[in-house]
Amino acid sequence: MRIIKTIGHLRKILNEFSRNGKRIGYIPTMGYFHEGHLRLVRHAKKECDICVVSIYVNPKQFSPAEDLSRYPRDIKRDSMMIEKENVDILFIPSDNIVYPNRYLTYIDVKEISGTLCGKYRPGHFKGVATVVAKLLNMVRPDVMYLGQKDAQQVVVLSRMVADLNFPVSIRVVATAREKDGLAMSSRNIYLSREDRCQAPVLFRALSDAAKRIQKGERSVSKIIAFIKKTITQDTSGKIQYVACVDANTLEPLKIFKGKALIALAVFFSRTRLIDNVIIPIKKTGKSQNY
Amino acid sequence: MRIIKTIGHLRKILNEFSRNGKRIGYIPTMGYFHEGHLRLVRHAKKECDICVVSIYVNPKQFSPAEDLSRYPRDIKRDSMMIEKENVDILFIPSDNIVYPNRYLTYIDVKEISGTLCGKYRPGHFKGVATVVAKLLNMVRPDVMYLGQKDAQQVVVLSRMVADLNFPVSIRVVATAREKDGLAMSSRNIYLSREDRCQAPVLFRALSDAAKRIQKGERSVSKIIAFIKKTITQDTSGKIQYVACVDANTLEPLKIFKGKALIALAVFFSRTRLIDNVIIPIKKTGKSQNY
Repeated sequence: MRIIKTIGHLRKILNEFSRNGKRIGYIPTMGYFHEGHLRLVRHAKKECDICVVSIYVNPKQFSPAEDLSRYPRDIKRDSMMIEKENVDILFIPSDNIVYPNRYLTYIDVKEISGTLCGKYRPGHFKGVATVVAKLLNMVRPDVMYLGQKDAQQVVVLSRMVADLNFPVSIRVVATAREKDGLAMSSRNIYLSREDRCQAPVLFRALSDAAKRIQKGERSVSKIIAFIKKTITQDTSGKIQYVACVDANTLEPLKIFKGKALIALAVFFSRTRLIDNVIIPIKKTGKSQNY
Repeated sequence: MRIIKTIGHLRKILNEFSRNGKRIGYIPTMGYFHEGHLRLVRHAKKECDICVVSIYVNPKQFSPAEDLSRYPRDIKRDSMMIEKENVDILFIPSDNIVYPNRYLTYIDVKEISGTLCGKYRPGHFKGVATVVAKLLNMVRPDVMYLGQKDAQQVVVLSRMVADLNFPVSIRVVATAREKDGLAMSSRNIYLSREDRCQAPVLFRALSDAAKRIQKGERSVSKIIAFIKKTITQDTSGKIQYVACVDANTLEPLKIFKGKALIALAVFFSRTRLIDNVIIPIKKTGKSQNY
């Protein structure tokens, strides 16, 4: 595995691969890998000739009040984990390479960036869209792999890629979960032992809600009430939002129809966890081509 | 010359050229060609293996009050003009290909989009940046050619390309002028005979101002007053703005130093003309690599 730190070096190597007709798979990350990242890598390894992973903790997607400085980082551990998966290139650009002085350009994916998480994290998806556009121009992959755990990110980036005509396919890989159902996240290490015990309630509530819908429940307000009750009655989780939206447009639903996304964000102490399911639920381990 | 109307067709042909190591030169235009466009083409033909021209009158860079519907169009005449220059590919996408339903993504180059023309054409440079990003992703050129007449457009697009890491060089070609100095523009056909006679005052004022600066004048306010007086004393031109700014940052200057841009916009009847000079003035016919 080559570790590359500059855009010039990255381009030189990747241009060579492209000229030789190699298919490049790319996974943009903020590092601190878990099984979810590794699954993206394995899909890329299987489906492409060259697998590129980037690690960059993007300051522009954190608001001043958020956890940029304490976001977990461990490049050495990350390198070892993906070297074992035979990743070809690990790209680790520094802040001054990604955002040099007098940086002025931002990409805004309107409407769908301002709902769900975006409502509580103003500017977050503008930061995500901007950095991913930059990374796509640096890496020029054939396929980009994203995890379904960040459902809104998937929708926003898919829309940006389509709208701006980036010549890349997006493959979405199902959320990796702990045995008890908790969605894997780099932020799970923040959880106290007690919070960690309670956190699986999120996926349990989502799964039970999905079952109710599969059995015929169509009322969004009833499903939201059910999820909220499930989470709050037994745990200390503080709900930021629970929403049922169209999975493509993110527009709120009143009754379940078509492809729906149930998404939520819940605080356990200071740690904000997110999770989601798509109705009808996708089978675990399958990826979805946008 | 091949005339291409879909992104899929364009990509298929251009990918083939790229794989064979051909250097692609690209000129984004709104059509209704004049000598200025042809000079861009000639630079591309000289410096690249494949010359691609696009014609697309981008609705997102016109405000509702502006001249979108009456913007001059003549694809047949345009095709003939550039076929003579041995252009390889003319790309003419339709509105529904460029902006399909539910288009949501916009690129904003902050600060420098809001000054000069941007102050009077809110949203204009957002529309320009967005469509050019799209076109760059469609064409994937090695070099993009822009005319110096649209000085702010050059600065905004150069900044966008650098900020978003588009792997393309920008070459700026000097403004083509009529014998009497009037900057060539597709909008010049709007001018009445009387206005057409008066319009060369713009470049005369700019050139005389440049001479004064070269002779030692350093006061921006004096130069602006001189230009305004020159334009208004003998003609019916109504000045929208005359500005002296840093040529790279577009920040207003108080005294001339470094590389300065003097830019102006003036109405003759309903027709808005723009022109500019860079101090020290570049020699005509030379292009400038950003």
